[in-house]
Amino acid sequence: MADILHRVGVHGASPEAVYEALTTPTGLAGWWTEDTTGDGGTGGQLRFRFPPVGGFDMDVVETRPAERVTWRVADGPAEWIGTTIDWTLRRDGDYTIVLFEHRGWAEPVEFMHHCSTKWATFLLSLKSLVETGRGAPAPGDVPISDWH
Amino acid sequence: MADILHRVGVHGASPEAVYEALTTPTGLAGWWTEDTTGDGGTGGQLRFRFPPVGGFDMDVVETRPAERVTWRVADGPAEWIGTTIDWTLRRDGDYTIVLFEHRGWAEPVEFMHHCSTKWATFLLSLKSLVETGRGAPAPGDVPISDWH
Repeated sequence: MADILHRVGVHGASPEAVYEALTTPTGLAGWWTEDTTGDGGTGGQLRFRFPPVGGFDMDVVETRPAERVTWRVADGPAEWIGTTIDWTLRRDGDYTIVLFEHRGWAEPVEFMHHCSTKWATFLLSLKSLVETGRGAPAPGDVPISDWH
Repeated sequence: MADILHRVGVHGASPEAVYEALTTPTGLAGWWTEDTTGDGGTGGQLRFRFPPVGGFDMDVVETRPAERVTWRVADGPAEWIGTTIDWTLRRDGDYTIVLFEHRGWAEPVEFMHHCSTKWATFLLSLKSLVETGRGAPAPGDVPISDWH
């Protein structure tokens, strides 16, 4: 098993503000993909689409306000199905620290390398959204390669 | 053991051009840190400094022109010492694909999460340097958190 790990700090923002951006369709549409629908509460399902290439359905496994969010991938690329995505939040001085863990990849395939880099750009998009009100969600996301 | 994995594609550039940016102090200073000295050939050592916080000494273990570069960390933060960094290059259409692997972390500590995200920003800096002639090396690198 292999994991993608990241850490960013959102300056001048509360854990509550970051939590809002991780649990509401409007918040998620502001940094990951504009085509986000569903229910971000525990037991809900979120649907993220990236036209024309597909997307992800996430079962929301856990939400602890301002502290933690866990998703399990219900549908999407074969390598993603059954993996889990954890978000852990804490305040540290003027920052909200975001620890990100996309766990349970069966193999460290090339697509996992791509997703690792792409997740970093989306975490910086999340940081920007909460700090400035403006993220870079798909379809206006940062291109990193021939795989977009 | 845990690994940091990334993938970017450098558009309109040859593997030779990316290799140059990975094996010469001038190239490395253009995307990672301006304070880069040493010898990037096999058997050489590269010294990367990030004033005032320290830096890394890398033993160059392998260089295969336009294909592969491997460094072993000789000095730096305790968590980095003994880890290895592999760069694999290949042409794919209009892109040079860069696979990056920072292998052999003893534990997936929070500092590893940070380094994973920070590596992504430096890979995008490398991409930008080779595509446009302008990267974002330290001290002008992209801030991601309270840890810079």
